[in-house]
Amino acid sequence: MDTLQISTLSTSYRSGELRVREVMEDVLARIDAAPERKIWIKRLPRESVMSYVEMLEQRSPEDLPLYGVPFAIKDNIDLAGVPTTAACPRFAYVPKRSATVVQRLIDAGAIPIGKTNLDQFATGLVGTRSPYGVCCNSFDPAYIAGGSSSGSAVAVATGLVSFALGTDTAGSGRVPAAFNNIIGLKPSCGLLSTQGVVPACRSLDVVSIFALTAADTETVLDVARGFDDADAYSKAMELAQPKPDPLRIGVPLADQLEFFGDEDCQARYEAACECAKALGASLVRVDIAYFLEAARMLYEGPWVAERYAAIQSLIESEPQALHPVTRQIIESGARASAVDAFRAQYRLQELRRLTSAAWRDIDMLLLPTTGTIYRIDEVLGDPLRLNTNLGFYTNFVNLLDLAAIAVPAGFRRDGLPFGVTFVAPVAQDRTLLSWAGRFHAASVSHLGALAEPVPAPQPQTSVSTNIRVVVCGAHMSGLPLNHQLTDRNARFVCAARTAPHYRLYALPGGPPQRPGLVRVETGGTAIEVEVWSVPQEHFGSFVAGIPAPLGIGKVELADGTQVCGFICEAYAVQQAVDISHLGGWRAYLGTR
Amino acid sequence: MDTLQISTLSTSYRSGELRVREVMEDVLARIDAAPERKIWIKRLPRESVMSYVEMLEQRSPEDLPLYGVPFAIKDNIDLAGVPTTAACPRFAYVPKRSATVVQRLIDAGAIPIGKTNLDQFATGLVGTRSPYGVCCNSFDPAYIAGGSSSGSAVAVATGLVSFALGTDTAGSGRVPAAFNNIIGLKPSCGLLSTQGVVPACRSLDVVSIFALTAADTETVLDVARGFDDADAYSKAMELAQPKPDPLRIGVPLADQLEFFGDEDCQARYEAACECAKALGASLVRVDIAYFLEAARMLYEGPWVAERYAAIQSLIESEPQALHPVTRQIIESGARASAVDAFRAQYRLQELRRLTSAAWRDIDMLLLPTTGTIYRIDEVLGDPLRLNTNLGFYTNFVNLLDLAAIAVPAGFRRDGLPFGVTFVAPVAQDRTLLSWAGRFHAASVSHLGALAEPVPAPQPQTSVSTNIRVVVCGAHMSGLPLNHQLTDRNARFVCAARTAPHYRLYALPGGPPQRPGLVRVETGGTAIEVEVWSVPQEHFGSFVAGIPAPLGIGKVELADGTQVCGFICEAYAVQQAVDISHLGGWRAYLGTR
Repeated sequence: MDTLQISTLSTSYRSGELRVREVMEDVLARIDAAPERKIWIKRLPRESVMSYVEMLEQRSPEDLPLYGVPFAIKDNIDLAGVPTTAACPRFAYVPKRSATVVQRLIDAGAIPIGKTNLDQFATGLVGTRSPYGVCCNSFDPAYIAGGSSSGSAVAVATGLVSFALGTDTAGSGRVPAAFNNIIGLKPSCGLLSTQGVVPACRSLDVVSIFALTAADTETVLDVARGFDDADAYSKAMELAQPKPDPLRIGVPLADQLEFFGDEDCQARYEAACECAKALGASLVRVDIAYFLEAARMLYEGPWVAERYAAIQSLIESEPQALHPVTRQIIESGARASAVDAFRAQYRLQELRRLTSAAWRDIDMLLLPTTGTIYRIDEVLGDPLRLNTNLGFYTNFVNLLDLAAIAVPAGFRRDGLPFGVTFVAPVAQDRTLLSWAGRFHAASVSHLGALAEPVPAPQPQTSVSTNIRVVVCGAHMSGLPLNHQLTDRNARFVCAARTAPHYRLYALPGGPPQRPGLVRVETGGTAIEVEVWSVPQEHFGSFVAGIPAPLGIGKVELADGTQVCGFICEAYAVQQAVDISHLGGWRAYLGTR
Repeated sequence: MDTLQISTLSTSYRSGELRVREVMEDVLARIDAAPERKIWIKRLPRESVMSYVEMLEQRSPEDLPLYGVPFAIKDNIDLAGVPTTAACPRFAYVPKRSATVVQRLIDAGAIPIGKTNLDQFATGLVGTRSPYGVCCNSFDPAYIAGGSSSGSAVAVATGLVSFALGTDTAGSGRVPAAFNNIIGLKPSCGLLSTQGVVPACRSLDVVSIFALTAADTETVLDVARGFDDADAYSKAMELAQPKPDPLRIGVPLADQLEFFGDEDCQARYEAACECAKALGASLVRVDIAYFLEAARMLYEGPWVAERYAAIQSLIESEPQALHPVTRQIIESGARASAVDAFRAQYRLQELRRLTSAAWRDIDMLLLPTTGTIYRIDEVLGDPLRLNTNLGFYTNFVNLLDLAAIAVPAGFRRDGLPFGVTFVAPVAQDRTLLSWAGRFHAASVSHLGALAEPVPAPQPQTSVSTNIRVVVCGAHMSGLPLNHQLTDRNARFVCAARTAPHYRLYALPGGPPQRPGLVRVETGGTAIEVEVWSVPQEHFGSFVAGIPAPLGIGKVELADGTQVCGFICEAYAVQQAVDISHLGGWRAYLGTR
């Protein structure tokens, strides 16, 4: 077994090439042989892992989307019967049942391997704030792994598991992905249940996914997601289909970029922008001042009170049980008043409104995941300020109800990985995943800290939710009924010609005067038309508003495709003027 | 002029029977002649009113939905150039521009008459907490008018204006409606802009509408509502169409009803339940414990901090500027911590989830608007407790993001009005309005404190967001493509016949075999069809899936209506069998 990529592993299971027992023996041996990086707070005993194997041996790989896929769980997410510590031994408890997302993964055939290290109470982006040791970077042990989901990211990057669960409130699911050359998805808020997860900021927390590839991430997402009545913040959400090319990608104004003096990372970010362009995206400069203002609110505003609320009884009764840095941060959460909290929420609501304007012009933002990276000793010497620097581009995402994906974006001269994050509106997770797969294949050559190559991206096979419609008269660009399309957010696709099987008539009546396009068996000609793309949900009202004798049927274009378009009932053209010889409606209008 | 009902007034303007100048002269005379009830904080000077008249005299009543309709504005909502006091003289300011909703109403032809009295800072349900005097009940001046929108409700009930704006955070738009025998709509949160409104609880406030009838209320709603970029809490919301009969109406468990010893109100509530049943609703007992828990959170929880935040500089610099009762309440808002605020929001989020289960079984809740009513001297003697009693059934509505309408429901033995409130999920405002019109006509005989009879309810004529589609072949009930309709939640409406202008052809191809319906100038016949109703959002995908030579155009039915339906391109019937003589597709299938 060379790889733990889910896609490859599943194929091998289904072909019979691999068996779950041998894979899991191999996984356990790998973990035993791996260098000590302080990844694990608790590994599952061999017999627990093998009990999952035995259950799967009675099932078919065909039936379970994650059959025999090993995974790790950040230790603030419950696995039944195993302590949840949140990296605070005094806080630990043994849950009777697994978190909803963990249970969904196990039910789909995934095998939990252990609970991973983290910044205590998921408070931090560094991975150094843990009494279980500092989880170190998978490329250079002198450097931080990033946090708070440090152990989960390093377990994936070093090939010990196929994927891992993290959590993400401020960037905990993205920063460690960037520092370890893997994918980190921060799903839309409410998409994955947080039942059975130790809260950081209860109103903002999400469960995140680390994997080697975007395709693997999406496989895990589709198992893990779903409405959960037991989580009051869970949402019954439909994910949008991936947006079609060309994507419009926003990049910050030049003076809004902050690399904390790290020219190497700056160069890598500029290369990432070029890479996105080379993949066909159009880059748009956007002012991200309001995004950055929201980011600052996460720790400077009253949301720290949520962290205090989550551990109030512990921090008040045994403050010394906390990591000193964590304690300093969370204790400050007791100071804010309810007036402060509501006033900050008002400003956040305004910032949601103000930032929403940006999404009219762009489909995604492209940001550095972090502006720089630090050594462990640097962070230990200046634990608050350097941590704050790492959240510069990540802290606003949950507050503004956005989705984000951290993607590898090349290597610095010192061999450490650099990553970027694509950010999109809520429910656009598939747009992010689809794009991330393409960007990943173009930006780096190998997965995580492994020798495995990045696989070619999957072709975009998703069904479009737009409907193309052929218009041949007053709905064309600039003509009197064109607003019926633009009002419905329809987009111009192209000018085109029909197959040479049509006659065009100027119908009596109006204004506006309208043509009738009639297909004929013989004597037809090609007519100039326009193709527009109408959001499916608005197409019905468009059709319903069309008066007789017109309607929407199928029109054959010159390339032989059949596209929705205007047709005309035959009875109506008996009094009408045949204008087919002019070749189209615009030419007819020019003759009047 | 007998009545200020908008519907009647508009008809009279359009017929030329009434002119705006004479109506407004009459309105001003009525107000001058009315007994002093402390309705107004500021009346507009005669010349201001007449300047609106002059503008309207240059416009046509046909063009403006509220042409020449007089209205009152609660004095926590801005009218340009007129002081906004929120019933606190030291707080007063003169706004340069009107609130968005006020401007929308004026732009639609409505004429503002004055600013109305209220419980200071909209904090109260009694109408007694105002330095501008206690606005008294329109039926008995010894009794409270209800609050906080006291003046607005009494102005409508006593026939001084056609409608009035209030605000509603805890019940301020419903309690005064109940106590004055009028309609009070608390629209869905975010439906009407709160730009230009003095906040009570900024995150919960709505602008409310008082009118004599549900029909008038809906007319005002449709002018006033709409997304406003200037209000961060404004929502771009589509209102659902009224739910069809039979409606399922929830009533509390018997031991959850609270009338504070008022047997008269209890009897009236029971009669209201019987009335709803007689109108065809099915009554369902529901446990409202979680609703009541949410209600208690509004004043017992941290939301009072929002009221403090709204006037922080005034209450800290000049606390004596506040009404003593108001001051006592709002000062308590400074005490809660951010931890308290977030923890209460978590519980509220849980209560939203827990109460959502109730809406699976019911379309609306039917509750007393209040369990009892009080004399002014009673409230002055016990201002906090009696006020709290009045919010028992109202305080949860905004917190749980619901819509509500207060409707007259008969009279007590002492001649005072009793009211009920129907509550429904967000965006169901039209269901509430439609039902309220029917209930109102069945429950009381006259409008407000006037001699005018309650008009018969309007038949349900609202535009459906469903699209009717005529099917003539394989999409009919029980035939092979019918699932394309039922999969889209389409409903069978009726069997029908086309106008006698069609030919029906059996097209080659299939399975399934399909007919083509072709309109002809001469020699047509009537064809049997079915009419189905398809949700608009699913109609587009239905149309897009129809192959050539068929399409969706307009089909004329026997009654002359033009309905969306299947049409067929003429070229395709040249090889097809004319089966018109059989009268329809089912008859043809029977011959094979």
